[in-house]
Amino acid sequence: MTEKQMHSGEDECDVIIRNPHISSMTEDVLYHLSLSSGSHDLQEMFGDIKFVCMGGTPKRMEGFSSFIQKELGIKLPTGTVLDDISKRSYRYSMYKIGPVLSISHGMGIPSLSIMLHEVIKLMYHARCKDVIFIRLGTCGGIGYPGGTLVITEGAVDGLLRPYLELHVLGEVVKRPAVLDKELAEELKTVGEEQLPNYNVVMGKTMCTYDFYEGQGRLDGAFCEYKEEDKMKYLEFLKTQGVTNIEMESLAFAAMCNYSGIKGAVVCVTLLNRLHGDQVTVPKSTLEEWQRRPQELIAAFIKKRLNLV
Amino acid sequence: MTEKQMHSGEDECDVIIRNPHISSMTEDVLYHLSLSSGSHDLQEMFGDIKFVCMGGTPKRMEGFSSFIQKELGIKLPTGTVLDDISKRSYRYSMYKIGPVLSISHGMGIPSLSIMLHEVIKLMYHARCKDVIFIRLGTCGGIGYPGGTLVITEGAVDGLLRPYLELHVLGEVVKRPAVLDKELAEELKTVGEEQLPNYNVVMGKTMCTYDFYEGQGRLDGAFCEYKEEDKMKYLEFLKTQGVTNIEMESLAFAAMCNYSGIKGAVVCVTLLNRLHGDQVTVPKSTLEEWQRRPQELIAAFIKKRLNLV
Repeated sequence: MTEKQMHSGEDECDVIIRNPHISSMTEDVLYHLSLSSGSHDLQEMFGDIKFVCMGGTPKRMEGFSSFIQKELGIKLPTGTVLDDISKRSYRYSMYKIGPVLSISHGMGIPSLSIMLHEVIKLMYHARCKDVIFIRLGTCGGIGYPGGTLVITEGAVDGLLRPYLELHVLGEVVKRPAVLDKELAEELKTVGEEQLPNYNVVMGKTMCTYDFYEGQGRLDGAFCEYKEEDKMKYLEFLKTQGVTNIEMESLAFAAMCNYSGIKGAVVCVTLLNRLHGDQVTVPKSTLEEWQRRPQELIAAFIKKRLNLV
Repeated sequence: MTEKQMHSGEDECDVIIRNPHISSMTEDVLYHLSLSSGSHDLQEMFGDIKFVCMGGTPKRMEGFSSFIQKELGIKLPTGTVLDDISKRSYRYSMYKIGPVLSISHGMGIPSLSIMLHEVIKLMYHARCKDVIFIRLGTCGGIGYPGGTLVITEGAVDGLLRPYLELHVLGEVVKRPAVLDKELAEELKTVGEEQLPNYNVVMGKTMCTYDFYEGQGRLDGAFCEYKEEDKMKYLEFLKTQGVTNIEMESLAFAAMCNYSGIKGAVVCVTLLNRLHGDQVTVPKSTLEEWQRRPQELIAAFIKKRLNLV
């Protein structure tokens, strides 16, 4: 019997846990989420989740939780407010708004991957079905100005390899960083139809482990290449179909793909990297731009829930 | 003229910025710290910093700032409190307590490295001299019970390679993950002499990009090896001198070494990985253990400042 088959019947969970040890554990402590299968009824708490939305900062994901609550018209009981479910972890923030989970993942692949391991297990313990994971991020655009919405069609690493490389028990393991093509297309259509004032593009996302040298910036503590080397490299990325650079999509795609969960990455560009390295637009503009992926995701969720 | 020589005279800064572009920038925005050389007098604000202490969560580093304030006997002006200098970034938290900076770095190498790039530049703009960087962390012990203080003598990656691998403009770059030997020895002596109730050891630290499969855990969303494979691997690590596993020391060591800054890593074990994967001790015990690196660092700073 596979893990997938363990929960049978109508509420069969379709999240694939590729770990035979989980089912024999008397308690599974989701340490970094401050939840546990022993102390919480995870199915009762999270069984209705259909959309797991994630982004870098706790602040942004708190903002998204309020925004999506309003957009979905979800009323809380009198005298209650949304509360950070994982606040005792001091690591990630997590809010539940009806069928939507809004979680922060910090910066970079390792921080994202700790959270994803535990959220995938959370979906499994909660017996969730047909769940979609979406990362709402910020990025640098390659040839696109600030404020552009980029939907990732596939992720590559800093050497343009389309897989996540892991070191497991001293061996190199490779996991394809594949995203759901249909979901990406659907998001692009929603963007084009419902947010006509925004530029929505789709392309390859380069995911790096370093923000400065890893993304060819000239303004880190270390930089041993010239501006012309950087420009030549960024122009090369453009010829390879790379539309944007960020720091999480590779692991996000690989882990969603490996657990059978449909995943999508929607980022807004904060600058066009062909024109510079530093983010210099006013804070109010940055905040407006960062709301754009939220607006797209809200429109998508409302469509899926037949609320429009 | 090298970058190092740019600031001459008695207050010569000895932080090495290996980036010729920085000196020609009219403004350097330290975006993720919410500081800028244009809008802040960084030398006036941070010129007296001698110890930069960092750890994962904002909460822990806020706690350390209060603790070190008390330990150093630093009085704040009436009606003032310590405030998070980087709070507008919503990414890292930073507190200044006399000559000590206390900063959170999040989880994993990418998150740490963004902060280190910017803090190294901050030390350079502030013309700091003889600065020591210390990471206060938590880790899994290899053969050591929870509560053990481990001082890192050198960091290795998940393939036991003693360097940080970066992808820079499509090329693989390797930076030795070397830490200051004398500083590590001094910290060990301080621990043995002043904290005789704690077990203090020194050894090699393995630094991984993944908390679950990367550290041979059996309790992630994915695990395609057996318990005996895991145990064999952990026992092998022990024979190679690996005392503990965490997720930041490799980049910390490589970046300190590359910028000429003396760095040290002091972690407390939360469990002995030869006996399990999940952290199951009570929260109060965990909190007491997490204070141990802080106590060691406080004793070290007091010794260096001749306060004992």
